[in-house]
Amino acid sequence: MGRGRLEAFSDGVIAIIITIMVLELKVPHGDSVHELVPLLPVFLSYVLSFVYVGIYWNNHHHMLHATTAVTGAMLWANLHLLFWLSLFPFATGWMGENHFAAMPTALYGVVLLMAAIAYYVLQQTIIRAQGPGSILKQAIGRDWKGKLSPVLYVVAILVTIWSPGVAEAIFVTVALIWLIPDRRIENVLARHEA
Amino acid sequence: MGRGRLEAFSDGVIAIIITIMVLELKVPHGDSVHELVPLLPVFLSYVLSFVYVGIYWNNHHHMLHATTAVTGAMLWANLHLLFWLSLFPFATGWMGENHFAAMPTALYGVVLLMAAIAYYVLQQTIIRAQGPGSILKQAIGRDWKGKLSPVLYVVAILVTIWSPGVAEAIFVTVALIWLIPDRRIENVLARHEA
Amino acid sequence: MGRGRLEAFSDGVIAIIITIMVLELKVPHGDSVHELVPLLPVFLSYVLSFVYVGIYWNNHHHMLHATTAVTGAMLWANLHLLFWLSLFPFATGWMGENHFAAMPTALYGVVLLMAAIAYYVLQQTIIRAQGPGSILKQAIGRDWKGKLSPVLYVVAILVTIWSPGVAEAIFVTVALIWLIPDRRIENVLARHEA
Amino acid sequence: MGRGRLEAFSDGVIAIIITIMVLELKVPHGDSVHELVPLLPVFLSYVLSFVYVGIYWNNHHHMLHATTAVTGAMLWANLHLLFWLSLFPFATGWMGENHFAAMPTALYGVVLLMAAIAYYVLQQTIIRAQGPGSILKQAIGRDWKGKLSPVLYVVAILVTIWSPGVAEAIFVTVALIWLIPDRRIENVLARHEA
Repeated sequence: MGRGRLEAFSDGVIAIIITIMVLELKVPHGDSVHELVPLLPVFLSYVLSFVYVGIYWNNHHHMLHATTAVTGAMLWANLHLLFWLSLFPFATGWMGENHFAAMPTALYGVVLLMAAIAYYVLQQTIIRAQGPGSILKQAIGRDWKGKLSPVLYVVAILVTIWSPGVAEAIFVTVALIWLIPDRRIENVLARHEA
Repeated sequence: MGRGRLEAFSDGVIAIIITIMVLELKVPHGDSVHELVPLLPVFLSYVLSFVYVGIYWNNHHHMLHATTAVTGAMLWANLHLLFWLSLFPFATGWMGENHFAAMPTALYGVVLLMAAIAYYVLQQTIIRAQGPGSILKQAIGRDWKGKLSPVLYVVAILVTIWSPGVAEAIFVTVALIWLIPDRRIENVLARHEA
Repeated sequence: MGRGRLEAFSDGVIAIIITIMVLELKVPHGDSVHELVPLLPVFLSYVLSFVYVGIYWNNHHHMLHATTAVTGAMLWANLHLLFWLSLFPFATGWMGENHFAAMPTALYGVVLLMAAIAYYVLQQTIIRAQGPGSILKQAIGRDWKGKLSPVLYVVAILVTIWSPGVAEAIFVTVALIWLIPDRRIENVLARHEA
Repeated sequence: MGRGRLEAFSDGVIAIIITIMVLELKVPHGDSVHELVPLLPVFLSYVLSFVYVGIYWNNHHHMLHATTAVTGAMLWANLHLLFWLSLFPFATGWMGENHFAAMPTALYGVVLLMAAIAYYVLQQTIIRAQGPGSILKQAIGRDWKGKLSPVLYVVAILVTIWSPGVAEAIFVTVALIWLIPDRRIENVLARHEA
C-alpha cells in the first residue's frame, strides 16, 4: 500500500473532526446579541482547537511526505493518532461550555498530551521502518518542539488545580510555538531532491 | 507539497460544511403540512448559504488551478478561509430560526465579510509567492467582484439596524453577481497553455 | 478543470449524505427490545434512502465517466443535484418518524422528483456541451428509466392522498427498476475504447 | 470504472462513520470529574467500535489492492458492506448508554455479524469476477479468521441472554485476532509483483 490511501483517509477524518467541532456552537433560540455572550468561551475553545487540528494536519502531511513505504504498524499508529484527535470535539465542547473550569481544562490537556504521544509513536514507527539513514529522522533533527510540547501539557494539566487560566495560556503558547513555520523537514527533503 | 493535498483537504471540509448546514433543518414531530411553515425561513437561509458555499468551492478551485507550488503561508491562509466558512452552518441556522431578524442577519453578514477577507488574503498570499508575472494576478485582473463584495457586506451589516430585508436583498444580489460565470481565470490559463 | 475534482467533491458530499441519514436513527434510552419497535419505520425509510443514494452515486459515476471536459454550467448543474440529494436526510427522517403518513410521504416523493429532474438537467447539460456525437447521448440511448421515474414519482405524490402505502410501493418499485444493472453506458464506452 | 473511485467513496464513508461515532459521547453539563463516570461505558464501546472500523478499513484496502476491474455487482456488494458499517454508531451508542445490557449487546453482535457476512459476500463477488487463478483467492488462503469470526459473533449473541460480559469478551477477542497483522494478502501480492 502506498502512502496515498493513508493520506486520503487521514485527510477525511481530520476534515470531519475540524468541522464537527463547530457543532458544539449550538444555535441560540433568541435573536438578541446577548444570546451570543455565553457562546464566547465555546467559540474561543473552538478557535484554539481549530488551530491545533490545523497544526496536526500540517505536520502530519510533512511527516508522510518523508515516508514512502507504508507498513501495517504505521497504519495502526496512524489510527491511534486519529483516535485521540477524534476526542478533540468532546474535550473542546466540555471546556467551552464550562467556561474553562478546572476539570474540563485538565481533560483538554490530557487529550492534547495523548495526541502528542500518539504523534511521537507514529513518527518513531516510521523512522524505525526506514532504518539507518532515515530521511524523517534527519528531517526532524533534535525535534525540540515535539519533546517540549508533552512536558508543557503535563505542566498545564497539573496547573489547572491552581489556575485553569495559566493552563490555557500554556495551551496557547504551545500552539504559537508550532505556528512558527517549521522548515526543517522541507529543507532536508529539498536537499535530498537536489 | 503539491496543491493536490490542499485541494483534497479543502474539498473535504467544504463538502462537510455544505452538508451539515442541512442538519439545522430539524425534522418536525407532527406529520401535517403546517409543520413545514416555520421551517421555511430556515430552508431559505439554507438555500442562500448553499449557493454561497458553492461559489466559494467554485472560485477556490479556479484559484488553486492557477497555483503550482504550495507554501506554508498558503496552507495557513487556506485554513483561515476554511475557519470562516465553518461558521456558515451556525450563522445560517441562527438567521433562519429567527426569521431573518436584525442581529442574526448582521452576524451572517459578518461571517460573509470575514470569509471574503480571508479569501482575499489567500489570493494575495498566492500572488506574492508567485512573484512578478503571477498567473493568478493576471487571471483575476481588476478583481472588481472581489473588491465590491466586502463593501456590499459592510453596507448590508449596517443596514440591518434599519431593515434586515434590505440586507438580505444585498446578500442575494452579491450571490447573483458571483453566479454569473467568471471566465477570467479560465481565459488567462487557456492563453498560457496555448 | 478536469472531471477529477468534480468527482471527488461529489463523492464527499454523497458519502456525508448517506452517513448522516443514519443519525435520524436516534439511540433509545431504555435497553429492552421494545425500544426498537418504534424505530422500525425509521430504519425502513433509511434502507430505502440508502438504496436511492447508492443508485445516484452509481449512475453519477457512470455519467461522469462519459464526460471529459467540465464546464461552469456542469459545475452548477452538479451542485443543483447535490442540493436536492442533501434534503434526503430531512425527508427520510420526517417520513420515518411519522410512520409513512401522507404528507411526509408526499414530501419524500417531491424530493425524489426534484433530484430526478436535477439529474436530468445535469445529463442534458453534459450532452449539450459534448455537441453532436455526444458519447453520453449514445450511452443513455432512449433513457426510458430516466423518463419513467419522474412520472412514477408524480403518480406516487398524488396517490399519497388516497393511500401512502401505494406511494411507498411505487418508490420501492422505482428503486428496483434502477437496481437492475444498467450496462448501457458501459457498453457504449467499451465499444468506443475498442 | 477503476477501483480508485470505489476506494475513495468507501474511504469517505468509513472516515465519517468512525468520526460520528464520537458524537454519542455527549458533552456533560456539569464541570466535575464525576460527570465523566457515566460516560465510561460509552467511551469503552467507542474504543471497541473504533478498533473494529479500523480493522475493516485495513482489510478493505488490502482486499481492493488485490482487485483490478470493478463490476456493478462489486459496487453493490460494497454498498451493502457500508450499509452495515453505517449502523455501528447506532449500535455502539445504544450499547454504551445502557452499560452493556443484554439486548443492546446482542444487537451490537448482530451488526458485527451482518458486516462480517457483507464483507464475505464482497470478497466472494470479487473472487468470482476474477475467475480461476484469482489473486484474491490465493491471497486469503484458507481465510480462517473470516470463517471463525461470524461463528464467534453468533456464540456471543446467544450468550448475551446468560451473560453480556462474556459476549463483550468475545467481541474483544475477535478484534484482537484481527489486530494480529495479516501478511497473507501482502505476501501473495509481493510474490506476484516479484
